[in-house]
Amino acid sequence: METIHQTVRTEFHYPVHFTRRVFEAGNTVLRDVIASSGSRRRAIFVVDEGVCTPERNFLQQLESYCHAHSDVIENVAAPIVVTGGEAVKNGSEYVAFVRSAVNTYGICRHSFVVAVGGGAVLDMAGYAAATSHRGVRLIRLPSTVLAQNDSGLGVKTSVNRFNKKNFLGTFTPAFAVINDLELLESLSDRDWRSGAAEAVKVALIKDTAFFESIEESAAALMHRDAYAMERLIYRCAQLHLQHISGGDPFETGSSRPLDFGHWAAHKLEQLTNYHLRHGEAVAIGIALDVTYSYLTGILSEDSWTRIIRVLLDLGLPVYAPELETRDLLAGLPEFREHLGGQLTILLLREIGDPVEVHEVDTQKMMESALALSQCAPVCSLK
Amino acid sequence: METIHQTVRTEFHYPVHFTRRVFEAGNTVLRDVIASSGSRRRAIFVVDEGVCTPERNFLQQLESYCHAHSDVIENVAAPIVVTGGEAVKNGSEYVAFVRSAVNTYGICRHSFVVAVGGGAVLDMAGYAAATSHRGVRLIRLPSTVLAQNDSGLGVKTSVNRFNKKNFLGTFTPAFAVINDLELLESLSDRDWRSGAAEAVKVALIKDTAFFESIEESAAALMHRDAYAMERLIYRCAQLHLQHISGGDPFETGSSRPLDFGHWAAHKLEQLTNYHLRHGEAVAIGIALDVTYSYLTGILSEDSWTRIIRVLLDLGLPVYAPELETRDLLAGLPEFREHLGGQLTILLLREIGDPVEVHEVDTQKMMESALALSQCAPVCSLK
Repeated sequence: METIHQTVRTEFHYPVHFTRRVFEAGNTVLRDVIASSGSRRRAIFVVDEGVCTPERNFLQQLESYCHAHSDVIENVAAPIVVTGGEAVKNGSEYVAFVRSAVNTYGICRHSFVVAVGGGAVLDMAGYAAATSHRGVRLIRLPSTVLAQNDSGLGVKTSVNRFNKKNFLGTFTPAFAVINDLELLESLSDRDWRSGAAEAVKVALIKDTAFFESIEESAAALMHRDAYAMERLIYRCAQLHLQHISGGDPFETGSSRPLDFGHWAAHKLEQLTNYHLRHGEAVAIGIALDVTYSYLTGILSEDSWTRIIRVLLDLGLPVYAPELETRDLLAGLPEFREHLGGQLTILLLREIGDPVEVHEVDTQKMMESALALSQCAPVCSLK
Repeated sequence: METIHQTVRTEFHYPVHFTRRVFEAGNTVLRDVIASSGSRRRAIFVVDEGVCTPERNFLQQLESYCHAHSDVIENVAAPIVVTGGEAVKNGSEYVAFVRSAVNTYGICRHSFVVAVGGGAVLDMAGYAAATSHRGVRLIRLPSTVLAQNDSGLGVKTSVNRFNKKNFLGTFTPAFAVINDLELLESLSDRDWRSGAAEAVKVALIKDTAFFESIEESAAALMHRDAYAMERLIYRCAQLHLQHISGGDPFETGSSRPLDFGHWAAHKLEQLTNYHLRHGEAVAIGIALDVTYSYLTGILSEDSWTRIIRVLLDLGLPVYAPELETRDLLAGLPEFREHLGGQLTILLLREIGDPVEVHEVDTQKMMESALALSQCAPVCSLK
């Protein structure tokens, strides 16, 4: 009997909207997203407690909004308020709770889970939604800079297991993403700043002009200029989304060309028990890999200095003591294992010009870490 | 800021091989599948205890095979032997165990989980593989007629939760499927026969000539003619795979045109505490929906008689007492909820000519159930 060669093609479409005050009754973005599905639909909300600040009255606003638009949104349950940050991905009870609500409230594949929060809450709620009924619809409302310009836009869902970040997860596109700039207002300065790290990353590997615009607006960004941040988020989102649609969205290959600086970032988050923000860890990971690029002779000193300087100008760290531990290097095989195949990391030849390598000189890497310990303020290494 | 419209396209390719004695050292099908990935790869095996019959010495054969092909297959752990049937999908410990093995033995996205067993074991192992590292590669070796001609071929993975079949799951294509006819030898007569139900189903909705060939070979199939079964499996697999690649593989719409007879089948399995085999439940579900098609005047008596007769000739049931309970009708909204959107079930206008309907006359449905209670041997209803 002859072998049958099967091909399965799928195509997903989703909008990424930019708005302000999404839950004001007159804002129809969320209403229109749900109405686009052709009928009145059920929805349950999963909300990061970080957005429920007392002054904002968030949950009441949310309920009023659903009430005002009840011809389209059937809000079937009280919002599920969950803790923010990695804790929500570490404990299996959160996923179990969301799945249980999907079951209890009859959320079907044409109903909605609406997740409002930072990247960790979106990842967790997305995983629960993606695995219930083989996928109920997810609308993401990212509430941090990092989630609006990077993690909330993509096709990944995940939780942590076995003390490994994102051990469980799926590739599942959202039904829609709604970026509300006002949601960022309640961020701490630290969270505001750390979100810019992914923008620096994507600029370094894809867009020299964007890197230059970040250099120019670094002081404004650091001082919470909302307009500058909106432009940064929009361009970063564009580049990120172009990358996903053009490449290998479900990562069947060995390389992950958007994960510049991430092998060390993932390990640093774990080594610091997630006391470092993801964006801070990414900033340090970028600093490490550009310093390694410089010390191994492929990146110029001038470009190296510009990159370290822009990170510092944005208020981002470029060093943590964990960089100088041998444990850090365990991040290399772990990074390979999560992705599979051959170890593949990115280095920089020039701003906007990355190169893939498959081997790392661990001695030089430790030297790079040591060099960074002396980098605030930026100094010459030679 | 303008909305960004994102498109994500993915394409999967996988072979469905047909062979005999897959674990004989000289059979290179499994070896070639793993070698096709370009390198020596790690693998762990999840095996249905149903295939581990004493006379077959299955586990020893498997180990010898991996040893003989250790230049390509790095068999890193003892096979994980699990119970067969729905029990393996009901208990969360099985998924947890497979995930834990993926973690312990460093199975990455380029390594393999090889699952050998009936549909339930393939579903469970597939779910564990699909959600670890956002998807490690799965090779399926279906060991039942049903899994070889239907459930083992597709893109679904699942386990049961909240007492609902397939509540958790993903759409994830396998890396390869290997159908080994000899694996069917140890099936009980009951399992052998029940697997033909999905072939009758797909013939009824897609291929009149295939239905006629099943009519002709019904006696041979019932008496375990391996050659007749091989042809049945091959044609059924072809039709099933064509359907998946041509339609809506990840089921984003409201209809599921391959699920003829399945709303009642799923409910009957649950109402009988899974004492009915899935194929038996499907046979009864088909009988119910064709009888309803006949009693509501859209299917001719002659065709109705032929369909009931072929089911009985194959040794399949067309009735269970649970058909006549009101509980059965709860299967309609549950079927809708799992799929989402509008209730959509298939009826038959003619053999090979289905029609979608969105409403069910529950009185006529109960009459259909009553009629079936008198159907062995087939009798006229008028």
